Amino acid sequence: MDLVVLSIIFGLLAIVYGFVTSRQVLSAPAGNAKMQEIAAAIQEGAQAYLKRQYTTIAVVGVVVAVIIAITLGTISAVGFVIGSVLSGVAGFIGMNISVRSNVRTAAAAQTGLQAGLTLAFRAGAITGMLVAGLALLAIAVFYHYLTAIAGYTIGGDDRTVVDGLVALAFGASLISIFARLGGGIFTKAADVGADLVGKVEAGIPEDDPRNPAVIADNVGDNVGDCAGMAADLFETYVVTVGATMVLTALLLKGLGEGLGAMMALPLLIGGVCIVTSIIGTYFVKLGSSNNIMNAMYKGFLVTAVISVGAIWWAIDYALGGMESPMSYTIMGNTVDFTGRTLFYCSLIGLVITGLIIWITEYYTSTAYRPVRSIAKSSETGHGTNVIQGLAISLESTAMPTLVICAGIIGAYQLAGLIGIAYAATAMLALAGMVVALDAYGPVTDNAGGIAEMAGLDDAVREKTDALDAVGNTTKAVTKGYAIGSAGLAALVLFAAYTTDLREFFPNLAVSFSLENPYVIVGLLLGALLPYLFGAMGMTAVGRAAGDVVLDVRNQFRENPGIMAGTSKPDYARTVDLVTKAAIKEMIVPSLLPVLAPIVVYFVITAVAGQANGFAALGALLLGVIVSGLFVAISMTSGGGAWDNAKKYIEDGHHGGKGSEAHKAAVTGDTVGDPYKDTAGPAVNPMIKITNIVALLLLAALAANGAG
Amino acid sequence: MDLVVLSIIFGLLAIVYGFVTSRQVLSAPAGNAKMQEIAAAIQEGAQAYLKRQYTTIAVVGVVVAVIIAITLGTISAVGFVIGSVLSGVAGFIGMNISVRSNVRTAAAAQTGLQAGLTLAFRAGAITGMLVAGLALLAIAVFYHYLTAIAGYTIGGDDRTVVDGLVALAFGASLISIFARLGGGIFTKAADVGADLVGKVEAGIPEDDPRNPAVIADNVGDNVGDCAGMAADLFETYVVTVGATMVLTALLLKGLGEGLGAMMALPLLIGGVCIVTSIIGTYFVKLGSSNNIMNAMYKGFLVTAVISVGAIWWAIDYALGGMESPMSYTIMGNTVDFTGRTLFYCSLIGLVITGLIIWITEYYTSTAYRPVRSIAKSSETGHGTNVIQGLAISLESTAMPTLVICAGIIGAYQLAGLIGIAYAATAMLALAGMVVALDAYGPVTDNAGGIAEMAGLDDAVREKTDALDAVGNTTKAVTKGYAIGSAGLAALVLFAAYTTDLREFFPNLAVSFSLENPYVIVGLLLGALLPYLFGAMGMTAVGRAAGDVVLDVRNQFRENPGIMAGTSKPDYARTVDLVTKAAIKEMIVPSLLPVLAPIVVYFVITAVAGQANGFAALGALLLGVIVSGLFVAISMTSGGGAWDNAKKYIEDGHHGGKGSEAHKAAVTGDTVGDPYKDTAGPAVNPMIKITNIVALLLLAALAANGAG
Repeated sequence: MDLVVLSIIFGLLAIVYGFVTSRQVLSAPAGNAKMQEIAAAIQEGAQAYLKRQYTTIAVVGVVVAVIIAITLGTISAVGFVIGSVLSGVAGFIGMNISVRSNVRTAAAAQTGLQAGLTLAFRAGAITGMLVAGLALLAIAVFYHYLTAIAGYTIGGDDRTVVDGLVALAFGASLISIFARLGGGIFTKAADVGADLVGKVEAGIPEDDPRNPAVIADNVGDNVGDCAGMAADLFETYVVTVGATMVLTALLLKGLGEGLGAMMALPLLIGGVCIVTSIIGTYFVKLGSSNNIMNAMYKGFLVTAVISVGAIWWAIDYALGGMESPMSYTIMGNTVDFTGRTLFYCSLIGLVITGLIIWITEYYTSTAYRPVRSIAKSSETGHGTNVIQGLAISLESTAMPTLVICAGIIGAYQLAGLIGIAYAATAMLALAGMVVALDAYGPVTDNAGGIAEMAGLDDAVREKTDALDAVGNTTKAVTKGYAIGSAGLAALVLFAAYTTDLREFFPNLAVSFSLENPYVIVGLLLGALLPYLFGAMGMTAVGRAAGDVVLDVRNQFRENPGIMAGTSKPDYARTVDLVTKAAIKEMIVPSLLPVLAPIVVYFVITAVAGQANGFAALGALLLGVIVSGLFVAISMTSGGGAWDNAKKYIEDGHHGGKGSEAHKAAVTGDTVGDPYKDTAGPAVNPMIKITNIVALLLLAALAANGAG
Repeated sequence: MDLVVLSIIFGLLAIVYGFVTSRQVLSAPAGNAKMQEIAAAIQEGAQAYLKRQYTTIAVVGVVVAVIIAITLGTISAVGFVIGSVLSGVAGFIGMNISVRSNVRTAAAAQTGLQAGLTLAFRAGAITGMLVAGLALLAIAVFYHYLTAIAGYTIGGDDRTVVDGLVALAFGASLISIFARLGGGIFTKAADVGADLVGKVEAGIPEDDPRNPAVIADNVGDNVGDCAGMAADLFETYVVTVGATMVLTALLLKGLGEGLGAMMALPLLIGGVCIVTSIIGTYFVKLGSSNNIMNAMYKGFLVTAVISVGAIWWAIDYALGGMESPMSYTIMGNTVDFTGRTLFYCSLIGLVITGLIIWITEYYTSTAYRPVRSIAKSSETGHGTNVIQGLAISLESTAMPTLVICAGIIGAYQLAGLIGIAYAATAMLALAGMVVALDAYGPVTDNAGGIAEMAGLDDAVREKTDALDAVGNTTKAVTKGYAIGSAGLAALVLFAAYTTDLREFFPNLAVSFSLENPYVIVGLLLGALLPYLFGAMGMTAVGRAAGDVVLDVRNQFRENPGIMAGTSKPDYARTVDLVTKAAIKEMIVPSLLPVLAPIVVYFVITAVAGQANGFAALGALLLGVIVSGLFVAISMTSGGGAWDNAKKYIEDGHHGGKGSEAHKAAVTGDTVGDPYKDTAGPAVNPMIKITNIVALLLLAALAANGAG
């Protein structure tokens, strides 16, 4: 069967899984009237936010689509639209499942831990499979249309397919940075604001229904941790698989007949791993020890192990055997490889994924030294809690960096740049499963909130808290995984950039050597972007959270019945306020990675000529990843560690809830919030956007005769 | 007159200034018996710490000296010993002046603000001139001995002079990282520990004599902010000027006769700027507005302006005119330059210095948005204070990066790599003045402590507080200046590395292109070093501060008379405890940058061959600077901003002293402490060590036949 069609079938399988499972989830009991009322408020707020967010993004999207249509043609513009619309769809559906499963999880938790886990995890799995399935379908259907139906060729001089794939990736990236950042600002502004004015000022517990910001906080979990995350991983998938195909088209032209199979192979690997991910979801079951994290791991391990066989099969099937020799030439060096070496590279990708999960758990779980050291340092106050948390966040970058470096070296030794691309593709092939683990988090977080607000038994809240604690680790895992894969994908994108550059501007001698000072300047400016972006994200959260505090204070003052419990706060007003703030704050930082490459190219070209302009731009792309990797990992792992240090103390250590240590830990948690859920995760799409804009700029310059 | 001898005379002038001014300072009244008793305790503690620190470093130093003697010969070993011993001497004298001027400044502040300022600034100026003078003398005398007395030649195949200069720089760097880190851990462990247990737990004010950690805190100012800083700037000076000379020797071989003058020119520029710095010190006077910062700026501006003329004279005198054409060839390109272009490059260095001072003031002074935004965010609690502080610390990297990039481009356009070297040299030429501004800080900090402990009038404490507030900004300025110059110096060192590589291994095709994955791996591993190093520094402070807290709690429990004010705490016991902790904690992180280049070279060589080993090592050097620049600037500026946000609130804003906002600001200040005084500033010597070790490794490999 045609390999691309086969991949499309696998992609459809994910949609079918999502459809069937969502019927199961939605048929579960939705709790009592009070619970449903609360859930409806959350649902309404989340939908209102997403609607406004996507409307705003659509304006930017239309402008960009027109620019692409003018500079690169209609096909590229269509690719851009497909990427952006499906990114939005992934986020939208994920959010819709999430806001319906939360109350059902709370209801299920009334019957037992296993019931709650099953429901919440299934809800997560729906989002996971939809993200992977839609991403795969976006590329596969578009590619199938271009090559099999519209008849565009690859391997020749026609750039339509390559440019179309790049534009599709750009669409996904652009939406995802807005969604990640907008959702991230929303969720943390609401969370921090609610905590500050509720826990700290009014002395009422988290999720207390008297807090006007409590619905906004729960809305935030859905629009940030669910919809934003889904858009982010959709982007990561599309860009990684797309970049592998683009690099294949650019480097493996010499394969002739075999090029078609090599173009389809990344899609097929993605396809078979959707099947393995679906199988894995059925193994998420509590053992006798009732350890929730282990239940998750069981599912992931099953997926990973059978993926090894599935990837072997995919390579064998696509290439007609594992040993037929292939080769490509880059800068005068010939690289030989076979299906078998690609298989080994894919294994490297799976191993990196496993190690990153393991390392992230080490740094964010309450069972190990890092989180416990933060908890212990809380005994001596707010300051030492934050100092230790910052130390851990800096330290947490070390092991992932070593793993990624080892992965780069191993894959490169096996099959050169194509090898690195396959390692990245195999990492992303497991996205369905990884997103499932993550999307489970906001569902349980919401379930806890609903249980609290609806006044359910403490026993229910205990179960949802237990489910939620694991969510902090799985959320950190996904972010580490996304940024780790970005480290590999950025190399692939950079290789596409340099290959394109040679093709478009064959007579321009561009030196990417570190001995060229414009390369250093590019590296420094690239390294600056995550810092500036992080600063903007953190400031936005601080500012929006301050607005929340003022609004809540006003509500308490205007209506004293709220604190007395005799009248209901105006939840919608706070939701609306946070919505406006988040939308306003997301625009400028999101445009930073779009505009920075263009500005740097034109400024350096004006000062030092086009060759140095391209050199500085290329270096900028690597500067972003070299610095972004550290900023993102330190923020996401550090934030997760702070959060769980607080939970560890709440479990009765170092004085437990209400102690001085607990207060210090709450401060650390607050600091970690924008770190791990706003600034940190948005660095991943930011890195990709910078790279893709550079590729599009190259293509636009070439198409418009600047070459 | 011989140019080097002339430079030596200028260097001696700095020593004479130091001698004369220290007699002036020491002849000032030393206050009453109580003040002298306190000062004596501080002095004793500081001397005891430094003695132990230098003894420990000496052990490492002897081992390293022996290794250098074996691999590179006796001359290099002698250079290493000169660099390390004089670095120690600079720190030792600076500390000795500081511990004697503190009490005299407190006494002088009794008579007026101007008297206090004059005394404290003169004390700082002694340290400043000694650092610049000793650094200049170290290189100039060693170079003079090698070339004029021992008769070694430059420009030929003899590597003795170049290797000797590199080894001298290594000696200075190695001592300085220990001193910066050891002193930084000491000062912040004592400061944080004293604050936590005093201000927070016992509710007694800062510098209350009942706090057993109070003497340790004041000792810390001297061993960290004074001795550690002096060693750091000594290192920066020696490495920058030394690297310029090494690059001159490697690149300008073709000049023949003129090479001698070009080798001496960096020394002469350093020499004339010692004179301009001395002149500038006499302009530090309060105007009618009583603005202390403006008084400082007056001195700096005078120095900067007359330095322009002085550098012109130096270049004109050394090269016999400004217009004689010179050129060098690098990688096939010929770079032409004249004395006039070198002068313009030097101006760029002066402008960078001015801009960095201005930017740092913007980010750390209470007069501008950044500090005020942190102060305002303190109103909503500890968490928002820290979030805003982190946002500012991330943001503060942007403008310095743009300035440094513009400086690199400008200097490179004018005279290639030699141009960048001259920009860096001109920056460091002002070190005498910049260190004077900085070394003033710990003197006033101590003066405040002594005033408090001796129970002087509140009016005196107000004056020392006013003097001290400026110290936070000037301290941040020096660090930004040092790390900014490191950005330029690292490029010079990298150029020396690649030039050496081609000379030693002419047949090895090493690709430093970003398209070589081993370059990416090197960049990532290099970028990791400041993170890991920062994590270790932060953890060390947290751990040592915890020990201080426990010791103070024990003293309070064992001797209830302390809090009652009837018996004296055992200050020496706490000093001793911090001393041991700091010495123990400084070893491992300091060895990280020494060992990392060696390990990376050998591991990558084993995996992928020697060419890739050298490529990864080279990339590591740039990775360290690309990431270290951001880590260091964000930590030092952010820390300064946090500290001054607290002071701004203490000045009566947002509720003033004792308010909730103030408590939150104290937390931010505590977090900023290890950021700005331990981890951040130590990144500067770390960057240089990594680079110098790489140069030595190359030389050692070549000398031992691995080429």
